[in-house]
Amino acid sequence: MTKKTFKNLEMNLSDFALSTDLYELTMAAAYFKSGQIKKRAIFELFVRKLPRNRSYMVAAGLEQAVAYLQSLRFVEKEISFLKSHESLKNLDNDFFEYLKDFRFTGDVWAVLEGTILFPNEPLLRVEGPIIEAQVVETFLLSVINFQSLIATKTSRITHVASNKDVIEFGSRRAHGPQAALLAARASFIGGCVGSSNTLAGYKFGIPIFGTMAHSYVMSYDKEIDSFQEFTQVFPRSMILVDTYDTLEAVRKIVEAGIKISGIRLDSGDLYQLSVESRKILDMGGYKDAKIMASGDLNENIIQDLVSRDAPIDYFGVGTELTTSRDDPAMNGVYKLVAIKIPRSKKKYQLIYKLKTSEGKKTYPGPKQIFRIFSNGLIERDIIGLEDEKLQVKAVPLLKKFMEHGRLIRKLPCLDTIQKFHIKQRDILPIEFKALDKVPEVFPVSYSDKLEKIEKEFRTE
Amino acid sequence: MTKKTFKNLEMNLSDFALSTDLYELTMAAAYFKSGQIKKRAIFELFVRKLPRNRSYMVAAGLEQAVAYLQSLRFVEKEISFLKSHESLKNLDNDFFEYLKDFRFTGDVWAVLEGTILFPNEPLLRVEGPIIEAQVVETFLLSVINFQSLIATKTSRITHVASNKDVIEFGSRRAHGPQAALLAARASFIGGCVGSSNTLAGYKFGIPIFGTMAHSYVMSYDKEIDSFQEFTQVFPRSMILVDTYDTLEAVRKIVEAGIKISGIRLDSGDLYQLSVESRKILDMGGYKDAKIMASGDLNENIIQDLVSRDAPIDYFGVGTELTTSRDDPAMNGVYKLVAIKIPRSKKKYQLIYKLKTSEGKKTYPGPKQIFRIFSNGLIERDIIGLEDEKLQVKAVPLLKKFMEHGRLIRKLPCLDTIQKFHIKQRDILPIEFKALDKVPEVFPVSYSDKLEKIEKEFRTE
Repeated sequence: MTKKTFKNLEMNLSDFALSTDLYELTMAAAYFKSGQIKKRAIFELFVRKLPRNRSYMVAAGLEQAVAYLQSLRFVEKEISFLKSHESLKNLDNDFFEYLKDFRFTGDVWAVLEGTILFPNEPLLRVEGPIIEAQVVETFLLSVINFQSLIATKTSRITHVASNKDVIEFGSRRAHGPQAALLAARASFIGGCVGSSNTLAGYKFGIPIFGTMAHSYVMSYDKEIDSFQEFTQVFPRSMILVDTYDTLEAVRKIVEAGIKISGIRLDSGDLYQLSVESRKILDMGGYKDAKIMASGDLNENIIQDLVSRDAPIDYFGVGTELTTSRDDPAMNGVYKLVAIKIPRSKKKYQLIYKLKTSEGKKTYPGPKQIFRIFSNGLIERDIIGLEDEKLQVKAVPLLKKFMEHGRLIRKLPCLDTIQKFHIKQRDILPIEFKALDKVPEVFPVSYSDKLEKIEKEFRTE
Repeated sequence: MTKKTFKNLEMNLSDFALSTDLYELTMAAAYFKSGQIKKRAIFELFVRKLPRNRSYMVAAGLEQAVAYLQSLRFVEKEISFLKSHESLKNLDNDFFEYLKDFRFTGDVWAVLEGTILFPNEPLLRVEGPIIEAQVVETFLLSVINFQSLIATKTSRITHVASNKDVIEFGSRRAHGPQAALLAARASFIGGCVGSSNTLAGYKFGIPIFGTMAHSYVMSYDKEIDSFQEFTQVFPRSMILVDTYDTLEAVRKIVEAGIKISGIRLDSGDLYQLSVESRKILDMGGYKDAKIMASGDLNENIIQDLVSRDAPIDYFGVGTELTTSRDDPAMNGVYKLVAIKIPRSKKKYQLIYKLKTSEGKKTYPGPKQIFRIFSNGLIERDIIGLEDEKLQVKAVPLLKKFMEHGRLIRKLPCLDTIQKFHIKQRDILPIEFKALDKVPEVFPVSYSDKLEKIEKEFRTE
């Protein structure tokens, strides 16, 4: 029992294949049994509507998506489980034999992680045998939706924090340990300088930070003793000063002459306390000591503190960032845009596809995002067909990353991704970065060719 | 590079130790280096304030918490990583030697999963050597906060769904693949009959559901062909009817005489479409066919549909459930409530602890929740000291689950947990389950003894 229990918490290689909605597998079986295994499909992943309050989104999660596609296997035990499941148990064995050798052999186009995007712009396109391209839907969505959500939220926060550093502190409120790890990664992409999550340092090389909690201070009879003992082990540390009386604690540090790198404020009126603490520190000869603020911070509170020139050097942001609290869902979808039907050994007939049920309009066909710059700023985007040649000068954003299931383009490292994102944000016109009003709608249009095709579908 | 990338997505046994805030480890080092390894600490995990709109919460995640505590180890590679980290690299080797043999040897009290709780009620208490009890904070919070969040949200949804079944459908919007898995588990506790997440079936034995997506229907030239082919492979399936024109699709099924178990509506006016579809099905001799509704459902929409007697048999709930969208954070905290200082070989001096910084009042000492029932309903709770004998008849909710690091009480299976929760919800007075008003505050008081102790701390 407990042994089994423990296993349940792991996410191993062999768990990824079943980490999917059951319908992906029943559809796979249906395609297989009705002899459609040679059909190819093209799917696009895009976000219909941004999370509340947002004018732009930040693409993230490609690295994990690629890792998944490269390693996807069904192991014996999983296949046995599927075989025994009520909805699949009447199938012939040939489908399960097929699953044994199942690999992802398709092609993948994607925008670079850190790219700023807008609604309806495909951030990933998968083309492959229809079963393969279908089965990967749920997993791709779960890693890309979540990391894009957090990178987007963080980008807003680090933008208003301006020249102050932001550290991600939210592991305890993340949606489980893996979400904590992925949030640390995505928040680094969105501009955080690091995280409190130790595993993020170990796995991704992200700078990690942390010194003490209130419990450490409370475990001593006297607050000052806890500071003394801690700095004897860790000289020049960041000291948490709000366990009892914040300013009193700062005064005690100064009086005792404890060598610190700075103080952390975690409750109360952060503006007032930072101003008063700064005074005490400066007058006590602690001009170099930094002030860090934390405790239910978000982009609005940080903007307020920064606009009032609060003498805060670092912001630690937890819950609001790792849960994207004002809207915790990135509504990415993965939609079929075309089918390729084999007509001869090497020839396929390409058929555009479009879902027409009310309220969920999409454009058919494999697409490309063309970005147009003007005066050094991002001016507008045109969504066209993948092979379209536009009349205007524009940069295509989707690049081919995988071919026949193999990675063919180097994935950039996290530092590069972060720099790329910040650079993009710098050239995004200011009105799309404002917090305090109804989000501006960035100009994205469809190419004439695409509009024409869509119209033909509607009137069919 | 890609090999490393792939590894980054796994969550193995060996990753759990570092899946924590760095400050847990710097505090551990500070305790170790200042010779406090023999001190014992008592921590309590509780929620100060419920998520928005909630009157009660549902405890969940104990099984994963126990699994973690039982398996916690630092492996060689992780210790090397810590040794090389900037903030720890100046420490003597003895701390890292200590980590090699580190095990959790403490005691754990907890409420049963599925228990209904209110703000400030401890759902878990850990007592152990101070380093052990401290280091586990972040991980315990991340698994318990998240599962409690989702079980709580689901309990609201399944309550208003009344006698209609609810299936969890939100893997693609969950905060990563592990969050999807844990959400499936927590939503089952909260009353869902199952999930679309295949891994939840494989790992937890949760019933899993799923048939087809729009892409399946679209991959055929004619909608009706997709239905025919699918039901040839999977006879009597749930057919998705809203890819093009919902009612037209239902009519086609009836006309063609396709054998189905039911239809799924995923967009449009679900009330209207369910009424019209029901008529078509009934008149066509499909009286047994069920109707499932999905598409951005939440407790308010479901309450509305149920109150209008929409002929819907099942609800599939995704994004709103797996992200707890109206408030995606359970603000559980893990607070030091007492320290035990060794005074002789077997004797400890117990010192109550309390943090007094503004706005974050807590009560000191190890506590127990005493629940008082009246006329078969939950009437009120009293939070007292763990060993307190109250004058009234009350049921203590916290039970001892671990002793010296070993599980001493059997963890119930998921079916038992779900039944236990539903039974609790049945005897919770109705006003705490209403959706459409300001949440009622359930009567929770502190014992006189606890109030007295708290007052003494305040006036010290």
